[in-house]
Amino acid sequence: MGRTSNARERLISSAGELWHARSYADVGVSEICEAAGVQKGSFYHFFASKRDLALAVIDDYWGRYSAQFLSPSIGADGPPLERITGLVERQVAFLAPAQEREGCLRGCPFGSLAMEMSTQDEVLRERLDRVFDDWARFFEMALADAVAAKDIPPVDVRKVARAMQAYLQGVFLLAKTKNDIAVIRDLGPQVVLLAGVAPQTAPRKRRAA
Amino acid sequence: MGRTSNARERLISSAGELWHARSYADVGVSEICEAAGVQKGSFYHFFASKRDLALAVIDDYWGRYSAQFLSPSIGADGPPLERITGLVERQVAFLAPAQEREGCLRGCPFGSLAMEMSTQDEVLRERLDRVFDDWARFFEMALADAVAAKDIPPVDVRKVARAMQAYLQGVFLLAKTKNDIAVIRDLGPQVVLLAGVAPQTAPRKRRAA
Repeated sequence: MGRTSNARERLISSAGELWHARSYADVGVSEICEAAGVQKGSFYHFFASKRDLALAVIDDYWGRYSAQFLSPSIGADGPPLERITGLVERQVAFLAPAQEREGCLRGCPFGSLAMEMSTQDEVLRERLDRVFDDWARFFEMALADAVAAKDIPPVDVRKVARAMQAYLQGVFLLAKTKNDIAVIRDLGPQVVLLAGVAPQTAPRKRRAA
Repeated sequence: MGRTSNARERLISSAGELWHARSYADVGVSEICEAAGVQKGSFYHFFASKRDLALAVIDDYWGRYSAQFLSPSIGADGPPLERITGLVERQVAFLAPAQEREGCLRGCPFGSLAMEMSTQDEVLRERLDRVFDDWARFFEMALADAVAAKDIPPVDVRKVARAMQAYLQGVFLLAKTKNDIAVIRDLGPQVVLLAGVAPQTAPRKRRAA
Protein backbone atom coordinates (compact mmCIF):
# COMPACT_ATOMS: atom_id res chain seq x y z
CA MET A 1 0.00 0.00 0.00
CA GLY A 2 1.42 3.38 -0.94
CA ARG A 3 1.91 6.25 1.48
CA THR A 4 -0.94 8.22 -0.03
CA SER A 5 -3.56 5.51 0.07
CA ASN A 6 -3.56 5.22 3.86
CA ALA A 7 -2.90 8.89 4.68
CA ARG A 8 -6.20 9.16 6.54
CA GLU A 9 -5.32 6.21 8.77
CA ARG A 10 -1.86 7.64 9.41
CA LEU A 11 -3.35 10.98 10.45
CA ILE A 12 -5.71 9.22 12.87
CA SER A 13 -2.93 7.10 14.27
CA SER A 14 -0.44 9.96 14.71
CA ALA A 15 -3.03 12.29 16.23
CA GLY A 16 -4.21 9.65 18.70
CA GLU A 17 -0.66 8.89 19.72
CA LEU A 18 0.45 12.50 20.11
CA TRP A 19 -2.68 13.68 21.91
CA HIS A 20 -2.54 10.75 24.30
CA ALA A 21 1.12 11.41 25.05
CA ARG A 22 0.59 15.16 25.53
CA SER A 23 -2.77 16.89 25.10
CA TYR A 24 -5.22 17.95 22.43
CA ALA A 25 -4.40 21.64 22.69
CA ASP A 26 -0.66 21.02 22.76
CA VAL A 27 -0.49 19.25 19.41
CA GLY A 28 -1.76 21.01 16.30
CA VAL A 29 -2.56 19.95 12.77
CA SER A 30 0.91 20.84 11.43
CA GLU A 31 2.70 18.59 13.88
CA ILE A 32 0.24 15.76 13.26
CA CYS A 33 0.74 16.04 9.50
CA GLU A 34 4.50 15.99 9.94
CA ALA A 35 4.37 12.92 12.19
CA ALA A 36 2.02 11.18 9.75
CA GLY A 37 4.10 12.12 6.71
CA VAL A 38 1.13 13.86 5.12
CA GLN A 39 1.34 17.26 3.40
CA LYS A 40 -0.50 19.84 5.43
CA GLY A 41 -2.22 20.95 2.24
CA SER A 42 -3.95 17.60 1.92
CA PHE A 43 -5.11 17.42 5.58
CA TYR A 44 -8.38 19.17 4.72
CA HIS A 45 -9.00 16.69 1.96
CA PHE A 46 -9.48 14.11 4.73
CA PHE A 47 -10.86 16.15 7.64
CA ALA A 48 -12.84 19.38 7.76
CA SER A 49 -11.14 20.41 11.02
CA LYS A 50 -8.97 19.33 13.91
CA ARG A 51 -12.19 18.46 15.71
CA ASP A 52 -13.26 16.19 12.85
CA LEU A 53 -9.96 14.38 13.18
CA ALA A 54 -10.58 14.09 16.93
CA LEU A 55 -13.97 12.48 16.29
CA ALA A 56 -12.30 9.95 13.99
CA VAL A 57 -9.63 9.27 16.64
CA ILE A 58 -12.30 8.67 19.29
CA ASP A 59 -14.13 6.25 16.99
CA ASP A 60 -10.89 4.46 16.17
CA TYR A 61 -9.79 4.12 19.82
CA TRP A 62 -13.25 3.07 20.97
CA GLY A 63 -13.56 0.45 18.23
CA ARG A 64 -10.19 -1.03 19.11
CA TYR A 65 -10.64 -0.75 22.87
CA SER A 66 -14.04 -2.41 22.93
CA ALA A 67 -12.93 -5.17 20.55
CA GLN A 68 -9.80 -5.89 22.58
CA PHE A 69 -10.93 -5.36 26.15
CA LEU A 70 -14.71 -5.59 26.38
CA SER A 71 -16.23 -7.80 23.69
CA PRO A 72 -14.18 -10.95 24.43
CA SER A 73 -15.56 -11.27 27.95
CA ILE A 74 -19.22 -10.40 27.31
CA GLY A 75 -21.25 -13.50 28.00
CA ALA A 76 -18.12 -15.43 29.02
CA ASP A 77 -18.32 -18.35 31.44
CA GLY A 78 -17.39 -17.84 35.05
CA PRO A 79 -18.59 -15.43 37.73
CA PRO A 80 -19.89 -12.28 35.99
CA LEU A 81 -18.05 -9.92 38.35
CA GLU A 82 -14.77 -11.46 37.20
CA ARG A 83 -15.39 -9.83 33.82
CA ILE A 84 -14.93 -6.52 35.65
CA THR A 85 -11.89 -7.48 37.74
CA GLY A 86 -10.54 -9.23 34.65
CA LEU A 87 -10.87 -5.99 32.69
CA VAL A 88 -8.67 -4.26 35.26
CA GLU A 89 -6.09 -7.06 35.00
CA ARG A 90 -6.08 -6.96 31.20
CA GLN A 91 -5.60 -3.21 31.22
CA VAL A 92 -2.71 -3.46 33.65
CA ALA A 93 -1.11 -6.14 31.47
CA PHE A 94 -1.53 -3.86 28.46
CA LEU A 95 -0.27 -0.69 30.15
CA ALA A 96 2.73 -2.11 31.99
CA PRO A 97 4.97 -2.56 28.90
CA ALA A 98 3.76 0.81 27.53
CA GLN A 99 4.80 2.54 30.73
CA GLU A 100 8.16 0.77 30.57
CA ARG A 101 8.62 1.87 26.96
CA GLU A 102 7.41 5.45 27.29
CA GLY A 103 8.68 6.19 30.80
CA CYS A 104 5.29 7.52 31.83
CA LEU A 105 1.79 6.31 32.40
CA ARG A 106 -0.59 7.95 29.96
CA GLY A 107 -3.82 6.86 31.58
CA CYS A 108 -7.09 6.57 29.72
CA PRO A 109 -7.25 8.40 26.37
CA PHE A 110 -11.02 8.92 26.67
CA GLY A 111 -10.78 10.25 30.21
CA SER A 112 -7.91 12.54 29.27
CA LEU A 113 -9.70 14.00 26.26
CA ALA A 114 -12.99 14.32 28.16
CA MET A 115 -11.24 16.13 31.02
CA GLU A 116 -9.50 18.53 28.66
CA MET A 117 -12.26 19.25 26.15
CA SER A 118 -15.64 18.92 27.89
CA THR A 119 -15.83 22.61 28.78
CA GLN A 120 -14.47 23.71 25.43
CA ASP A 121 -16.06 21.73 22.62
CA GLU A 122 -19.66 20.59 22.85
CA VAL A 123 -19.37 18.20 19.91
CA LEU A 124 -16.38 16.39 21.42
CA ARG A 125 -18.00 16.39 24.87
CA GLU A 126 -21.15 14.76 23.51
CA ARG A 127 -19.20 12.15 21.55
CA LEU A 128 -17.10 11.25 24.61
CA ASP A 129 -20.21 11.15 26.76
CA ARG A 130 -21.67 8.59 24.35
CA VAL A 131 -18.48 6.53 24.61
CA PHE A 132 -18.88 6.51 28.39
CA ASP A 133 -22.56 5.53 27.98
CA ASP A 134 -21.62 2.60 25.74
CA TRP A 135 -18.81 1.62 28.08
CA ALA A 136 -21.15 1.66 31.09
CA ARG A 137 -23.25 -1.03 29.39
CA PHE A 138 -20.34 -3.47 29.78
CA PHE A 139 -20.57 -2.98 33.56
CA GLU A 140 -24.38 -3.09 33.49
CA MET A 141 -24.43 -6.44 31.69
CA ALA A 142 -21.92 -7.99 34.09
CA LEU A 143 -23.85 -6.65 37.09
CA ALA A 144 -27.21 -7.85 35.75
CA ASP A 145 -25.72 -11.31 35.20
CA ALA A 146 -24.20 -11.25 38.72
CA VAL A 147 -27.61 -10.40 40.20
CA ALA A 148 -29.28 -13.13 38.12
CA ALA A 149 -26.64 -15.62 39.34
CA LYS A 150 -27.29 -14.43 42.91
CA ASP A 151 -23.59 -13.58 43.27
CA ILE A 152 -24.63 -10.15 44.56
CA PRO A 153 -27.85 -8.84 46.08
CA PRO A 154 -30.23 -6.94 43.79
CA VAL A 155 -28.70 -3.55 43.06
CA ASP A 156 -29.52 -0.54 40.92
CA VAL A 157 -27.52 -1.91 38.01
CA ARG A 158 -27.29 1.37 36.09
CA LYS A 159 -26.17 3.33 39.10
CA VAL A 160 -23.58 0.79 40.24
CA ALA A 161 -22.28 0.51 36.66
CA ARG A 162 -21.72 4.29 36.58
CA ALA A 163 -20.10 4.21 40.01
CA MET A 164 -17.69 1.49 38.85
CA GLN A 165 -16.89 3.42 35.70
CA ALA A 166 -16.25 6.58 37.72
CA TYR A 167 -14.08 4.68 40.16
CA LEU A 168 -11.87 3.17 37.48
CA GLN A 169 -11.51 6.53 35.71
CA GLY A 170 -10.40 8.02 39.03
CA VAL A 171 -7.96 5.17 39.66
CA PHE A 172 -6.41 5.76 36.24
CA LEU A 173 -6.14 9.48 36.97
CA LEU A 174 -4.40 8.92 40.32
CA ALA A 175 -2.07 6.39 38.69
CA LYS A 176 -1.22 8.89 35.95
CA THR A 177 -0.57 11.58 38.57
CA LYS A 178 1.66 9.24 40.57
CA ASN A 179 3.15 7.87 37.33
CA ASP A 180 2.83 4.44 38.85
CA ILE A 181 0.87 1.50 37.50
CA ALA A 182 0.94 -0.04 41.00
CA VAL A 183 -1.92 2.34 41.87
CA ILE A 184 -4.14 0.49 39.36
CA ARG A 185 -2.95 -2.92 40.57
CA ASP A 186 -3.61 -1.95 44.18
CA LEU A 187 -6.88 -0.02 43.91
CA GLY A 188 -8.42 -1.53 40.76
CA PRO A 189 -9.77 -4.74 42.34
CA GLN A 190 -11.60 -2.68 45.00
CA VAL A 191 -14.10 -1.76 42.28
CA VAL A 192 -16.33 -4.66 43.34
CA LEU A 193 -16.95 -2.98 46.70
CA LEU A 194 -19.28 -0.66 44.80
CA ALA A 195 -21.53 -3.65 44.10
CA GLY A 196 -21.62 -4.41 47.82
CA VAL A 197 -19.17 -7.30 47.79
CA ALA A 198 -15.70 -7.63 49.31
CA PRO A 199 -12.78 -7.90 46.88
CA GLN A 200 -11.27 -11.38 46.75
CA THR A 201 -8.06 -11.65 48.65
CA ALA A 202 -5.42 -13.49 46.73
CA PRO A 203 -4.72 -16.82 48.45
CA ARG A 204 -1.12 -15.96 49.26
CA LYS A 205 -2.12 -12.81 51.12
CA ARG A 206 -3.23 -13.19 54.70
CA ARG A 207 -5.12 -10.59 56.63
CA ALA A 208 -3.55 -9.28 59.77
CA ALA A 209 -5.44 -10.63 62.77
CA MET B 1 -4.80 49.01 46.59
CA GLY B 2 -3.31 50.11 43.26
CA ARG B 3 -3.35 47.93 40.16
CA THR B 4 0.40 47.36 40.28
CA SER B 5 0.68 46.33 43.89
CA ASN B 6 -1.42 43.20 43.50
CA ALA B 7 -0.33 42.29 39.97
CA ARG B 8 1.03 38.93 41.15
CA GLU B 9 -2.30 38.02 42.76
CA ARG B 10 -4.18 39.10 39.64
CA LEU B 11 -1.96 36.92 37.45
CA ILE B 12 -2.60 33.92 39.73
CA SER B 13 -6.32 34.57 39.80
CA SER B 14 -6.67 35.07 36.02
CA ALA B 15 -4.51 32.05 35.21
CA GLY B 16 -6.42 29.78 37.58
CA GLU B 17 -9.73 30.95 36.17
CA LEU B 18 -8.74 30.64 32.50
CA TRP B 19 -6.98 27.27 32.86
CA HIS B 20 -9.90 25.84 34.81
CA ALA B 21 -12.37 27.07 32.20
CA ARG B 22 -10.28 25.78 29.28
CA SER B 23 -6.90 24.07 29.68
CA TYR B 24 -3.30 24.82 30.57
CA ALA B 25 -2.03 24.43 27.02
CA ASP B 26 -4.87 26.44 25.56
CA VAL B 27 -4.16 29.63 27.51
CA GLY B 28 -0.74 31.24 27.27
CA VAL B 29 1.08 33.93 29.17
CA SER B 30 -0.05 36.76 26.85
CA GLU B 31 -3.72 36.01 27.33
CA ILE B 32 -3.27 35.68 31.09
CA CYS B 33 -1.48 39.04 31.26
CA GLU B 34 -4.23 40.67 29.23
CA ALA B 35 -6.96 39.23 31.47
CA ALA B 36 -5.04 40.30 34.58
CA GLY B 37 -4.32 43.76 33.23
CA VAL B 38 -0.59 43.23 33.61
CA GLN B 39 1.99 44.23 30.98
CA LYS B 40 3.51 41.15 29.46
CA GLY B 41 6.92 42.70 30.01
CA SER B 42 6.47 42.59 33.76
CA PHE B 43 5.21 38.98 33.89
CA TYR B 44 8.74 37.65 34.28
CA HIS B 45 9.29 40.02 37.17
CA PHE B 46 6.79 37.90 39.09
CA PHE B 47 7.25 34.42 37.61
CA ALA B 48 10.21 32.73 35.96
CA SER B 49 7.94 30.77 33.63
CA LYS B 50 4.39 29.68 32.87
CA ARG B 51 5.13 26.61 34.98
CA ASP B 52 6.12 28.78 37.94
CA LEU B 53 2.82 30.56 37.65
CA ALA B 54 1.09 27.16 37.55
CA LEU B 55 2.82 26.16 40.80
CA ALA B 56 1.57 29.36 42.42
CA VAL B 57 -1.94 28.70 41.11
CA ILE B 58 -1.89 25.17 42.54
CA ASP B 59 -0.75 26.50 45.94
CA ASP B 60 -3.42 29.19 45.88
CA TYR B 61 -6.24 26.79 44.92
CA TRP B 62 -5.11 24.18 47.40
CA GLY B 63 -4.88 26.71 50.24
CA ARG B 64 -8.35 28.01 49.54
CA TYR B 65 -9.88 24.61 48.88
CA SER B 66 -8.55 23.01 52.05
CA ALA B 67 -9.50 26.03 54.16
CA GLN B 68 -13.03 26.14 52.74
CA PHE B 69 -13.89 22.48 52.28
CA LEU B 70 -11.62 20.31 54.43
CA SER B 71 -10.39 22.10 57.55
CA PRO B 72 -13.81 23.10 58.95
CA SER B 73 -14.93 19.49 59.31
CA ILE B 74 -11.70 17.92 60.63
CA GLY B 75 -12.37 16.77 64.17
CA ALA B 76 -16.01 17.89 63.92
CA ASP B 77 -18.67 16.26 66.03
CA GLY B 78 -20.95 13.67 64.51
CA PRO B 79 -20.30 10.42 62.67
CA PRO B 80 -16.85 10.68 61.03
CA LEU B 81 -18.04 9.29 57.68
CA GLU B 82 -20.41 12.24 57.43
CA ARG B 83 -17.36 14.45 56.98
CA ILE B 84 -16.88 12.63 53.69
CA THR B 85 -20.49 12.68 52.53
CA GLY B 86 -20.69 16.25 53.81
CA LEU B 87 -17.71 17.17 51.63
CA VAL B 88 -19.61 15.92 48.59
CA GLU B 89 -22.66 17.98 49.60
CA ARG B 90 -20.61 21.12 50.17
CA GLN B 91 -18.94 20.75 46.79
CA VAL B 92 -22.28 20.31 45.06
CA ALA B 93 -23.62 23.41 46.82
CA PHE B 94 -20.54 25.32 45.65
CA LEU B 95 -20.58 24.03 42.08
CA ALA B 96 -24.31 24.35 41.36
CA PRO B 97 -24.40 28.17 41.07
CA ALA B 98 -21.08 28.13 39.16
CA GLN B 99 -22.53 25.72 36.61
CA GLU B 100 -25.61 27.91 36.34
CA ARG B 101 -23.44 31.01 35.81
CA GLU B 102 -20.90 29.51 33.43
CA GLY B 103 -23.19 27.14 31.55
CA CYS B 104 -20.78 24.27 32.02
CA LEU B 105 -19.40 22.13 34.80
CA ARG B 106 -15.66 22.63 35.10
CA GLY B 107 -14.97 19.76 37.44
CA CYS B 108 -11.95 19.59 39.74
CA PRO B 109 -9.10 21.99 38.88
CA PHE B 110 -6.48 19.66 40.39
CA GLY B 111 -7.81 16.63 38.54
CA SER B 112 -8.01 18.58 35.28
CA LEU B 113 -4.45 19.88 35.53
CA ALA B 114 -3.11 16.50 36.67
CA MET B 115 -4.81 14.77 33.76
CA GLU B 116 -3.44 17.26 31.25
CA MET B 117 0.08 17.77 32.54
CA SER B 118 1.23 14.57 34.29
CA THR B 119 2.85 13.14 31.17
CA GLN B 120 4.30 16.47 30.14
CA ASP B 121 5.78 18.28 33.11
CA GLU B 122 7.44 16.34 35.90
CA VAL B 123 7.53 19.35 38.25
CA LEU B 124 3.80 19.96 37.92
CA ARG B 125 3.06 16.24 38.17
CA GLU B 126 5.00 15.96 41.44
CA ARG B 127 3.34 19.04 42.90
CA LEU B 128 -0.14 17.77 42.01
CA ASP B 129 0.74 14.34 43.35
CA ARG B 130 1.62 15.98 46.68
CA VAL B 131 -1.72 17.80 46.67
CA PHE B 132 -3.47 14.45 46.23
CA ASP B 133 -1.34 12.99 49.05
CA ASP B 134 -2.33 15.82 51.40
CA TRP B 135 -5.95 15.54 50.32
CA ALA B 136 -5.99 11.80 50.98
CA ARG B 137 -5.14 12.52 54.62
CA PHE B 138 -8.56 14.14 55.04
CA PHE B 139 -10.14 10.81 54.10
CA GLU B 140 -7.63 8.85 56.21
CA MET B 141 -8.44 10.86 59.34
CA ALA B 142 -12.19 10.47 58.88
CA LEU B 143 -11.79 6.73 58.26
CA ALA B 144 -9.49 6.24 61.26
CA ASP B 145 -12.04 8.05 63.44
CA ALA B 146 -14.87 5.95 61.98
CA VAL B 147 -12.94 2.76 62.80
CA ALA B 148 -12.20 4.04 66.31
CA ALA B 149 -15.90 4.84 66.78
CA LYS B 150 -16.73 1.31 65.51
CA ASP B 151 -18.91 2.86 62.78
CA ILE B 152 -17.08 0.69 60.26
CA PRO B 153 -15.07 -2.51 60.61
CA PRO B 154 -11.28 -2.17 60.69
CA VAL B 155 -10.09 -1.33 57.18
CA ASP B 156 -6.82 -0.48 55.50
CA VAL B 157 -7.33 3.23 56.09
CA ARG B 158 -4.73 4.43 53.59
CA LYS B 159 -6.01 2.20 50.83
CA VAL B 160 -9.67 3.04 51.39
CA ALA B 161 -8.79 6.75 51.55
CA ARG B 162 -7.11 6.49 48.15
CA ALA B 163 -10.04 4.51 46.76
CA MET B 164 -12.46 7.20 47.93
CA GLN B 165 -10.31 9.95 46.46
CA ALA B 166 -10.12 8.09 43.16
CA TYR B 167 -13.86 7.52 43.16
CA LEU B 168 -14.71 11.18 43.72
CA GLN B 169 -12.23 12.28 41.05
CA GLY B 170 -13.92 9.87 38.64
CA VAL B 171 -17.38 11.10 39.62
CA PHE B 172 -16.30 14.68 38.91
CA LEU B 173 -14.88 13.60 35.55
CA LEU B 174 -18.10 11.83 34.52
CA ALA B 175 -20.12 14.85 35.68
CA LYS B 176 -17.91 17.17 33.61
CA THR B 177 -18.29 14.89 30.59
CA LYS B 178 -22.07 14.80 30.98
CA ASN B 179 -22.06 18.50 31.93
CA ASP B 180 -24.48 17.63 34.68
CA ILE B 181 -24.04 18.19 38.38
CA ALA B 182 -26.75 15.58 39.01
CA VAL B 183 -24.05 12.95 38.39
CA ILE B 184 -22.25 14.15 41.53
CA ARG B 185 -25.48 14.32 43.52
CA ASP B 186 -26.44 10.83 42.43
CA LEU B 187 -23.10 9.00 42.61
CA GLY B 188 -21.22 11.02 45.23
CA PRO B 189 -22.86 9.54 48.34
CA GLN B 190 -21.96 6.01 47.10
CA VAL B 191 -18.39 6.79 48.13
CA VAL B 192 -19.02 5.20 51.54
CA LEU B 193 -19.51 1.80 49.89
CA LEU B 194 -15.71 1.75 49.52
CA ALA B 195 -15.46 1.64 53.32
CA GLY B 196 -17.77 -1.36 53.37
CA VAL B 197 -20.93 0.44 54.43
CA ALA B 198 -24.21 1.06 52.59
CA PRO B 199 -25.04 4.67 51.70
CA GLN B 200 -27.92 6.12 53.69
CA THR B 201 -31.12 6.39 51.77
CA ALA B 202 -32.78 9.74 52.24
CA PRO B 203 -36.04 9.27 54.17
CA ARG B 204 -38.22 10.82 51.46
CA LYS B 205 -37.00 8.40 48.83
CA ARG B 206 -38.68 5.05 48.61
CA ARG B 207 -37.31 2.08 46.80
CA ALA B 208 -39.39 0.54 44.08
CA ALA B 209 -40.76 -2.78 45.30
